[in-house]
Amino acid sequence: MISVNADRLWATLEEMAQIGATPAGGVTRLALSDEDRIARDRLRDWAQQAGLHCDVDTLGNMFIRRPGRQSHLPPVLMGSHVDSQPLGGRYDGIYGVLAGLEVLRTLNDRQIDTERDILLVNWTNEEGARFAPAMLASGVWTGHFSEAFALSRTDSDGMSVDEALQAIGYRGSRPARSIPLHACYEVHIEQGPILEEEGIDIGVVRSAMGQRWYTVTLKGFAAHAGTTPMRSRRDALTGFARLALEVEEIGIRHIPDGRATTGMVQNSPNSRNVVPGEVVCSVEFRHPQSAALEAMEKDLHAAVADLRERGLEVKVERIFDYAPIAFDPGCTRRVEQAASQLGYAWRPMVSGAGHDTCYLNAIAPASMIFIPCEKGISHNEAENILPRWSEKGANVLLHALLSAAGEI
Amino acid sequence: MISVNADRLWATLEEMAQIGATPAGGVTRLALSDEDRIARDRLRDWAQQAGLHCDVDTLGNMFIRRPGRQSHLPPVLMGSHVDSQPLGGRYDGIYGVLAGLEVLRTLNDRQIDTERDILLVNWTNEEGARFAPAMLASGVWTGHFSEAFALSRTDSDGMSVDEALQAIGYRGSRPARSIPLHACYEVHIEQGPILEEEGIDIGVVRSAMGQRWYTVTLKGFAAHAGTTPMRSRRDALTGFARLALEVEEIGIRHIPDGRATTGMVQNSPNSRNVVPGEVVCSVEFRHPQSAALEAMEKDLHAAVADLRERGLEVKVERIFDYAPIAFDPGCTRRVEQAASQLGYAWRPMVSGAGHDTCYLNAIAPASMIFIPCEKGISHNEAENILPRWSEKGANVLLHALLSAAGEI
Repeated sequence: MISVNADRLWATLEEMAQIGATPAGGVTRLALSDEDRIARDRLRDWAQQAGLHCDVDTLGNMFIRRPGRQSHLPPVLMGSHVDSQPLGGRYDGIYGVLAGLEVLRTLNDRQIDTERDILLVNWTNEEGARFAPAMLASGVWTGHFSEAFALSRTDSDGMSVDEALQAIGYRGSRPARSIPLHACYEVHIEQGPILEEEGIDIGVVRSAMGQRWYTVTLKGFAAHAGTTPMRSRRDALTGFARLALEVEEIGIRHIPDGRATTGMVQNSPNSRNVVPGEVVCSVEFRHPQSAALEAMEKDLHAAVADLRERGLEVKVERIFDYAPIAFDPGCTRRVEQAASQLGYAWRPMVSGAGHDTCYLNAIAPASMIFIPCEKGISHNEAENILPRWSEKGANVLLHALLSAAGEI
Repeated sequence: MISVNADRLWATLEEMAQIGATPAGGVTRLALSDEDRIARDRLRDWAQQAGLHCDVDTLGNMFIRRPGRQSHLPPVLMGSHVDSQPLGGRYDGIYGVLAGLEVLRTLNDRQIDTERDILLVNWTNEEGARFAPAMLASGVWTGHFSEAFALSRTDSDGMSVDEALQAIGYRGSRPARSIPLHACYEVHIEQGPILEEEGIDIGVVRSAMGQRWYTVTLKGFAAHAGTTPMRSRRDALTGFARLALEVEEIGIRHIPDGRATTGMVQNSPNSRNVVPGEVVCSVEFRHPQSAALEAMEKDLHAAVADLRERGLEVKVERIFDYAPIAFDPGCTRRVEQAASQLGYAWRPMVSGAGHDTCYLNAIAPASMIFIPCEKGISHNEAENILPRWSEKGANVLLHALLSAAGEI
C-alpha cells in the first residue's frame, strides 16, 4: 500500500508552527489576524507549488482543488482549519489541513489520478476565539447561519468579520454556499486522553456529542463581610459553589461519555471584604445521546430549585443546543478498512468537541479520523503529538480518501 | 437631661447628602475628590458659624476644637470620616461627623462649658476605596504607618495622596501625629442587621473583630471541556467551589460572632468550553477572639490539604493579620450610662468592620457607639437610617462626651 512522506509532513507541520509561534512552544494564530494571513498565504503557495489552484469564498474559506478524471461528479472533500486558540497548540486544526496537503503531494508524487476531484479546505474561524460562535464559516457554508450574520460578528475591539476579511485580503468572490459532495473527511488530534492511554493509533469517529450551553445568573445581596452575620447572608458566590459541584456530579453520573463543565464565572462586586451579591456563570453539558442531555438539563433545574430555596434568585438561559450527530456509516467504514489494511490499531470514538465536519455531516456523507495527542492536552501551548501518530493519521486519510474518490 | 436638636441634625445630614449625591439616593464622595473638598469646606464653614476653629494636618485630617475651661488637659475627641465608597450610602462615616457637630452646636445653644477641650475630627481616606489601605490617615496619626508611606499611596489613575491633598487644598501644616487624649468616641451606623432585628437603639461597642485575610491560588490543568472525561480532569474551579463551601462552614462553626467570606475569585482561562486551570481567590476570617481566628486558619489549611489530595496545587498566603481589639471599659461604661439614663435600649456589640477608632484605641481610651441601619445595608446606595435612630445616637454621644469632658 502506498503511504505518505512522513518526514515531509512533519517538516511542513514544523514550518507552519513558526507562524504565530509562542515562546512556550505553542501558537497564537487567531482567525483573520496577520498570523492567519501569513499561514493562509503559505498554504496557498504550497498548493501552487503542487500545481493546484486555490479558490477563496466570501467568508475566506479556502478550497484547493486537485482535479480528477470526472470533474462533473461531486468531489471528495478533506480539511480542517488554520486558525488557533490564543496560546493554543501546534496541531489543533492545522494538522488536518497539512495532512490533507501531504495526501495531495503524495498523489502527485505517485502520479495517481482519481475519478473524482479532491478538495482540500481551510475553514475560517473554526475556533471562535476571536469571533463567536465557533465554526462560523462552515456554519454559513452548510446553511446553519446566514452570511450577513457571520460577516457582522465582531471581535473584542469591535472589528467585524467583514472588515477583518478585507484587512487581510481574504474576502473572496466565490459564494460561501455548499456544493454537492461525495464524502467529507477531517483528520484531527483527539484533544482527549483516550487513544494515548489505550495505546491505539486511530479513532474512527462515529458520532459527535450533543451540547447544551447555559448562562446561569445567581442573585443574592451584596453585604459587608465584617458586619453581616453568617445566617443573615444571601451569598451569591457560595450559591455558585454549590451549583458548580452539582454540575460536576451530573457529569460523573453520566461517565464515561458525559461531560459537565462550569468554565466561566463572573463574580460581583468581587471585592475581598464584600459578601458577593451576584454571579453569572456558564454551564455546559455534552453527551452522545439526546435522552442523557435531557436528564442532565433536568438535574440542572433541580439544582437551581435548591438554590432558590436557599434564598437566591436564579435565572437559567439555554443559549446553545446542538443535537448529537451520527456520522455517515459509509464514510466511517472506509476509515476502518484503511486502518485495518494498514495494520493500525483503531477503535470507534465519540467526538466531544465540535468540528466543522459536524456541520458538513448535515449536507453530505462525512466522518472524522482522530489521532492521539499527548495526555489529551489541547487548547494549550503544551499540546503535542508524535511523528508516527501524525504519519498514521495521514495514511488513513489517504486511503479513505482514495477509496471515496475512486467511486463512480 | 439635655438633648440634641434632632431636626437640625437631620437637616444637616440631608444637606451633606447632596454633596456627591447619586441618582439612586446614595453618595459618591471619594477621599480627596472634588466632592470630598466641597464636603470638607461645608464642614469647616459650619464650624466657623459655630465660632469654632478648624485645624488641618499634613494628611488632611480636620480637627475642630471647642475649648474647655482647662485647655492644658488632654482633650476628648469624637468624629469619623466624610469620605464614602463609590456608590456608597448617605450615613456611613458622615453620620459620626455630623452627630459630633450637632453635639458642639447643642453645647453652644445651652452655653455649656466643659472642663476639657472637645475635638471633632474628620479622618482622611477611611474607606480606602480610592487609596489603599483603608483608615490611612488615622493609621499614620496613631503610628501604624509612616507619613511618607501614606503620602505616596496612589489611586488607580496614579495620583498620589500627596498630590490629591494639594489639589483640593487640604495639605495642612499641623503634624499628623497623635496628641494625648482623655477619651475618644465614634458614633457610626452598625452596617449590620442586628440592632434593627432586635429592636435595640444603641450598640455599645466593646470590641472589634480581629481579621485575617488570605490569597489562595489553586492550580489544576486547563483542558477541553468536550474531550476531557470527567475522571481525567484537574478542575481548579470545582476545587475553588469546595473551598468556598468549606470557608462558609468554618464561619458557621463560629456563629454568632465569626465571619468567613470568599469575596473575590478570578478564574482562568474563564472560557465556557475549557475546564478551568487556575483560580485565585480571597478568603477572610473575622472573630473577636484570637484563639478562634487560629482555629479558623487551621481549618482553612485542612480544607486546602483536602484539595491537594484531589490533585490540585494550592498556595495560601496570609496577606493581612489584624488582632482583635478590646475597647476601653471606662469609655464603654460612659456610653452604657448615657444610654440607660436616656431610657434607650442598648446591648453590647462587637464591631465586625474596621474603623479609625480601632487605631485610636491603641494610643488612648476609646470606644464606639452603633445605631441601627435598615436591613444592615451599607456600602450601598440603599443604605438608610431613621431620624429617631440618628437622634438617639447623637444624644448618647452628647452625654458620654459630656461625662468624659467633665472629668478632671
